[in-house]
Amino acid sequence: METFPCDEKTNVRVAVPSKASHAKKPDTVVDVQGVKFGGNEVVIIAGPCAVEDMDQLFETARLVKAGGAKILRGGAFKPRTSPYNFQGLGEDGLKLLAQARQETGMPVVTEVMDTRQIEIVARYADMLQIGSRNMQNYPLLKEVGLVKKPVLLKRGMMATIEEFLMAAEYILNQGNENIVLCERGIRTFETSTRNTLDLSAVPMLKYLTHLPVIVDPSHGTGIRWMVPAMAKAAVAAGTDGLIMEVHYHPEKALCDGQQSLSPDEFRTMMGDLRKIADAIGRKIS
Amino acid sequence: METFPCDEKTNVRVAVPSKASHAKKPDTVVDVQGVKFGGNEVVIIAGPCAVEDMDQLFETARLVKAGGAKILRGGAFKPRTSPYNFQGLGEDGLKLLAQARQETGMPVVTEVMDTRQIEIVARYADMLQIGSRNMQNYPLLKEVGLVKKPVLLKRGMMATIEEFLMAAEYILNQGNENIVLCERGIRTFETSTRNTLDLSAVPMLKYLTHLPVIVDPSHGTGIRWMVPAMAKAAVAAGTDGLIMEVHYHPEKALCDGQQSLSPDEFRTMMGDLRKIADAIGRKIS
Amino acid sequence: METFPCDEKTNVRVAVPSKASHAKKPDTVVDVQGVKFGGNEVVIIAGPCAVEDMDQLFETARLVKAGGAKILRGGAFKPRTSPYNFQGLGEDGLKLLAQARQETGMPVVTEVMDTRQIEIVARYADMLQIGSRNMQNYPLLKEVGLVKKPVLLKRGMMATIEEFLMAAEYILNQGNENIVLCERGIRTFETSTRNTLDLSAVPMLKYLTHLPVIVDPSHGTGIRWMVPAMAKAAVAAGTDGLIMEVHYHPEKALCDGQQSLSPDEFRTMMGDLRKIADAIGRKIS
Amino acid sequence: METFPCDEKTNVRVAVPSKASHAKKPDTVVDVQGVKFGGNEVVIIAGPCAVEDMDQLFETARLVKAGGAKILRGGAFKPRTSPYNFQGLGEDGLKLLAQARQETGMPVVTEVMDTRQIEIVARYADMLQIGSRNMQNYPLLKEVGLVKKPVLLKRGMMATIEEFLMAAEYILNQGNENIVLCERGIRTFETSTRNTLDLSAVPMLKYLTHLPVIVDPSHGTGIRWMVPAMAKAAVAAGTDGLIMEVHYHPEKALCDGQQSLSPDEFRTMMGDLRKIADAIGRKIS
Repeated sequence: METFPCDEKTNVRVAVPSKASHAKKPDTVVDVQGVKFGGNEVVIIAGPCAVEDMDQLFETARLVKAGGAKILRGGAFKPRTSPYNFQGLGEDGLKLLAQARQETGMPVVTEVMDTRQIEIVARYADMLQIGSRNMQNYPLLKEVGLVKKPVLLKRGMMATIEEFLMAAEYILNQGNENIVLCERGIRTFETSTRNTLDLSAVPMLKYLTHLPVIVDPSHGTGIRWMVPAMAKAAVAAGTDGLIMEVHYHPEKALCDGQQSLSPDEFRTMMGDLRKIADAIGRKIS
Repeated sequence: METFPCDEKTNVRVAVPSKASHAKKPDTVVDVQGVKFGGNEVVIIAGPCAVEDMDQLFETARLVKAGGAKILRGGAFKPRTSPYNFQGLGEDGLKLLAQARQETGMPVVTEVMDTRQIEIVARYADMLQIGSRNMQNYPLLKEVGLVKKPVLLKRGMMATIEEFLMAAEYILNQGNENIVLCERGIRTFETSTRNTLDLSAVPMLKYLTHLPVIVDPSHGTGIRWMVPAMAKAAVAAGTDGLIMEVHYHPEKALCDGQQSLSPDEFRTMMGDLRKIADAIGRKIS
Repeated sequence: METFPCDEKTNVRVAVPSKASHAKKPDTVVDVQGVKFGGNEVVIIAGPCAVEDMDQLFETARLVKAGGAKILRGGAFKPRTSPYNFQGLGEDGLKLLAQARQETGMPVVTEVMDTRQIEIVARYADMLQIGSRNMQNYPLLKEVGLVKKPVLLKRGMMATIEEFLMAAEYILNQGNENIVLCERGIRTFETSTRNTLDLSAVPMLKYLTHLPVIVDPSHGTGIRWMVPAMAKAAVAAGTDGLIMEVHYHPEKALCDGQQSLSPDEFRTMMGDLRKIADAIGRKIS
Repeated sequence: METFPCDEKTNVRVAVPSKASHAKKPDTVVDVQGVKFGGNEVVIIAGPCAVEDMDQLFETARLVKAGGAKILRGGAFKPRTSPYNFQGLGEDGLKLLAQARQETGMPVVTEVMDTRQIEIVARYADMLQIGSRNMQNYPLLKEVGLVKKPVLLKRGMMATIEEFLMAAEYILNQGNENIVLCERGIRTFETSTRNTLDLSAVPMLKYLTHLPVIVDPSHGTGIRWMVPAMAKAAVAAGTDGLIMEVHYHPEKALCDGQQSLSPDEFRTMMGDLRKIADAIGRKIS
């Protein structure tokens, strides 16, 4: 290990190994079926927490597409704190996602929780998500590093920036450089929000690495009415994208309803985000 | 104590006493010699960490005023972790602040650390600051509650939103309603920044109380080059103001030089902040 | 500042100034009216959270003395999160403490919250307590440094070991070396206990400084039935003393009843503590 | 979900599902080849962080057995923050562990990181360890729940007591009740130790569940000279066992040398632990 070469502008204490492949190089642009992370566009990923059924998924997908989303999200395998909560539809959920892609033209991203699921998830999805709880699941990181699909790597809820970059290194190290980093809130002593959204991670990660960085204000706050304010803040802070939970009927959602936007709330927020993107010289199409 | 009447829009677990005077009422506008917090304007407070000498203070004051600051900050009594670090100029610093006000026309805000200092600080300053380490110094809170001057109350680096509101209640309870709340970063496990700036505190506090809320991106990050990004994010999140450290020669500052903006950096950032304020229908004059 | 000279036995990253007077010297023994902290004896401080009335105080004092306590605790000025909670009896409380001392022969320790209270508290008490919320109240630290009485300095609930030692330095620096450090739980993400009692602070502080170190398992856990287990653990970890809340009728206590031991619980625990002290070659008389 | 039925003795806010199978029942005794967790004996698990070679493993195994250890630990698959650090010997390490068992008669425990490794690890080991980073790796938890071997479940460094119990529930739910819970330090703001060992988890977990609870003072502190003090504290707090890193030449260890005890340190500590166990009516043979 050697200390990261901090210049005089920072007091960053992050240490990265000398071989680290994400130390600054020209910015990487990650291409997900034509949708580009890391360029001038601020990419919006939206959709339900979990895929519940065709109606819910397709309806929500059409609505978020109409609002400006470029990629559809939805969980088929769900990591839940309690074994007695809804665990997802599994492969049936993946099939519905693939149909929704065909229907709407939007690429889809979904979570993979286990090395044995990679093959099947990669068959249906355009981008593989590694969730917060698996950020240091090293066998999983290594295996998605061998797949050719782009990876959405979420920060562990108690991972330092250094550990986050080291997790990315496990993927890069296997040859897959198509990684989008996602800040999604960290665990602190504060209990009025579900997590504490660490927006300073956006400029810090952009400073330390060449990879695109996005923000998840839904998990970062856990509170529906707070999502638009934090989404706006994230765009102003320089994020390359946002991933958000939207549900066509949040009050009926099988998971995370309390942090899911309704289609109307999503549309209104998107209008505000475009103005802010505009103000800082970026674009949300 | 009874539970705060949360409506269906939130999962806020904050509990406030039934007598709580900051529970929602029409928004309070705090007027500091004509500068208004809590209206449409996003108020900028800027100046050096500590008052060092006439040259430093006056030069910095003129520069921040030219850049758009409305209130001058500067410490005369400095709380320092080590007793061997610079502790401030004391009353001499207060006198310099009063002269700088006369020179520039900007009201001044400075920290009061002890009940015995209130009288003298109130004689010179237009707004009294309660620092992070004193957020739960109850005798001090009670006494500034008896003073007629506006108070800038900084969140303790370890304080929950609920404790922050209770601290404000100590001041309100004595009859002084002219309180501006300031989020300035909380302590977490993350070490790449000095603190973790909790921008979700902005919408949460605006939701729970009628008091104006501002943000301190200098202490919130501790890193000079990161201040503009977080200042922009704070404006997008809905802050009523910003307080920032600016020094005419940051590299020579007696304290906090590593998080102080140069006059050039301040000016550039102010241009960006105006665009974002504009995008959300607010104003920085 | 220079880095603390860590030897090969540790990875301690604590930095103390070169002038630091608490860097290792022969162990300091703090004498409170004949009761000695820092020797072979493990000193027990016990009593109610707050002084409520003569009956409560005297009855509790007699009971804790009979159980083996050497010093009586009790708050006259109480720092409370909410201004609407019981704030203590003030000077009347101090007078009751002085009478209880006369009655039982035990020296008394009580909290001082404000520089203006030091004189009066010092008139009645044998040892001055600086509470957790005031650990970085520098004017208060400096002033108790000028008093000749021993000081019980509690760790801030979010203070690092380094900051804790720096706070002690503010007192030492004024000439008062009679300081007993107290670990009382830190704030973490865990919510099943009031705080997280950081018992590793005991060996760490003993390693870094010559000052005696005690533990407060009442605030450290916030849960009555858990106090004995953590008190036993503290003794095994090498603490020089314990400070505990005991109330003659915990269910009627005006504050902290849920973490106060009944006299019976106190007596049973003391028996267990003596056996552990014995097992490690120390003494509880 | 319903709230855990807290009695009047606690303010525990842990919520467990009504089906929760670990809510209080008669204490479970977990038997690992005749070594029993959850009875009167305090079980000592010791060995190197990672299996490095035959000489290192066998020599260390003989020494810890002589000192009183009942189970041998050693990692074959190592989760490391950086992909450039030593990752373990894999199956060769498992074979060495099996040989060391034959040589010394001690059962062995080793970590399994991936569902695909379970079969092979279960072939060689007597107890499967789920590491801190995998505490919420739900597919892994479910699969070890289907195996007949005892499981050592380490608390995630970011996991609340409630989440820890829910993770155990994933295993119990599949039919495997042979679970030993292990507190190993949580992540806090304090940086002088590697983690903050939360010893209050011992009485809390014993209160909430029927499962045995052990403590890992090596990872809990990260500092070799601090391990004995915290091991003693853990025994006094009521732990059912300890797991510790011991290396025959700590200064040459390929991982965690700075927190590994030398054989001499281990032997001395064991003598002290026996005295404390004795003082509280338990036994270390």
